[in-house]
Amino acid sequence: MNIKDEITKRTDEINGIIETFLPKEEGYQKTVLEAMNYSVHAGGKRIRPMLMLETYRLFGGSEKVIEPFMAAMEMIHTYSLVHDDLPAMDNDMLRRGKPTTHAVYGEAMGILCGDALLNYAYETATLAFDKTNDVDVLAHKIPKAMKVLTTKAGIYGMVGGQTADVEAEKMGLSLDEDKLRFIIDEKTGALIESSMMIGGILAGASEEDILRIEKIANNVGVAFQIQDDILDVIGDEAILGKPIGSDERNEKPTYVVLHGLDASKEKVKSLTEEAVDILKGFEGDTSFLEEFLMYLVYREK
Amino acid sequence: MNIKDEITKRTDEINGIIETFLPKEEGYQKTVLEAMNYSVHAGGKRIRPMLMLETYRLFGGSEKVIEPFMAAMEMIHTYSLVHDDLPAMDNDMLRRGKPTTHAVYGEAMGILCGDALLNYAYETATLAFDKTNDVDVLAHKIPKAMKVLTTKAGIYGMVGGQTADVEAEKMGLSLDEDKLRFIIDEKTGALIESSMMIGGILAGASEEDILRIEKIANNVGVAFQIQDDILDVIGDEAILGKPIGSDERNEKPTYVVLHGLDASKEKVKSLTEEAVDILKGFEGDTSFLEEFLMYLVYREK
Repeated sequence: MNIKDEITKRTDEINGIIETFLPKEEGYQKTVLEAMNYSVHAGGKRIRPMLMLETYRLFGGSEKVIEPFMAAMEMIHTYSLVHDDLPAMDNDMLRRGKPTTHAVYGEAMGILCGDALLNYAYETATLAFDKTNDVDVLAHKIPKAMKVLTTKAGIYGMVGGQTADVEAEKMGLSLDEDKLRFIIDEKTGALIESSMMIGGILAGASEEDILRIEKIANNVGVAFQIQDDILDVIGDEAILGKPIGSDERNEKPTYVVLHGLDASKEKVKSLTEEAVDILKGFEGDTSFLEEFLMYLVYREK
Repeated sequence: MNIKDEITKRTDEINGIIETFLPKEEGYQKTVLEAMNYSVHAGGKRIRPMLMLETYRLFGGSEKVIEPFMAAMEMIHTYSLVHDDLPAMDNDMLRRGKPTTHAVYGEAMGILCGDALLNYAYETATLAFDKTNDVDVLAHKIPKAMKVLTTKAGIYGMVGGQTADVEAEKMGLSLDEDKLRFIIDEKTGALIESSMMIGGILAGASEEDILRIEKIANNVGVAFQIQDDILDVIGDEAILGKPIGSDERNEKPTYVVLHGLDASKEKVKSLTEEAVDILKGFEGDTSFLEEFLMYLVYREK
């Protein structure tokens, strides 16, 4: 398997699905609709919907009910980037080489665009109720998926992590280990966890298997973030497309800063190995997911 | 009936219900939780949950399934105020005589608090699935209520109206009638519509009755907003607690500016009479709702 080709194929498939859920750019509110579509189209590999779809398929899912949740997940991820880039937050004018949403549409529209994407994510998720007549899916599986989707994105998930992160930046290197782990778990891990969990829930995976999936996804999220911090120290600037060493210059507390490079590399390795071991325990073809997880963690940019 | 006493009694009841859904202020994300509770506690009469509960009762509803939706509605209303007050939006430091959320917690936390409230509103709404074992309610009524809740708050509802409003302020008095009506319908009307519709939906009102409810609520929302603009011209500054004439000074296009005071008063009257007429057509005791609608519209502040 050429993992890069397989990912590209799936990214194209997922972009086609997401496109069907994006709003038409018309009406008196046209500007915010343009800003939403601009922000979503600026996205990358669609890692989260890909993890959701692959987990859904691993547990035998094959219905359209997953599609609104895939689109919703990408909208939630996108809204978080749009608001993170705002002047009062990270104040970034460029993301992946393109002007950020507020840089193009202004700050007021940047705020409204993020709000619109977050709300539209949940509006889109409710379309799952139209994709099936199965009463068990309607009355139990979709509600359970909506609970995970909302919880992991909010104060007991991503927004919780963002809050601690905003405060940690003021604290600089006095940040303690527990709080750093909370930030990584929630800011980066939570949406990866809910992506995979929702795939499992909608496919009818057991409670026990959902817990295993959550563990795999948490390991991957944490390893992904530590690798990000490692690349900021030893990455190739030409491949990364940005200068290295920014965390140290900004006195940003990271796993690498707290534990050093060797311990960080070891941590990424052990987290990933554990995740792949649990994954191998499931019946069914886990080969793409295994390679995808390793690709995500051991990337060079 | 002393309508003011009846409203106060219900506001107290609703505050008790909302309180049970607010987050505990603990954990590494404590600051955003404090900001959320501060923002919700700064609220007023709880008009939207009150309309929801009264409509639910009018159609015979008596279960706890309505309560998460009441709290969710107030959280959505509150988030919209928190983000509207931000420096890049209306830049207000005071609301109802109290410092606004970003004035107390800073701009970054103001953004996160609004995001947190919007997300937590939907997280809270999913708790409705835990309040019943009735499969029809689980598989059909709650999903339908969630669709109305999400749609009326988003790009085809409140956020749509906010977007047009942000742009209208730049256009000043060149704003046309259609666009002004769109802004009033969506920015003010949409949440009042969904509040009453969700009450009807969860109580099992017919499709036809839901349409009638939507019409009543739209009339009330529009009349409420025009009355707001009338008070800005002829209100008593001592009662209002703010200076009058600000719309004219700011060249803010309103119904009163476009049509004059007499036509505006006539419009409020005809909208309200029509709403009360439709309401009287329902079986059951509509007396509180009738007086409440008139109280909302013909208020002095």
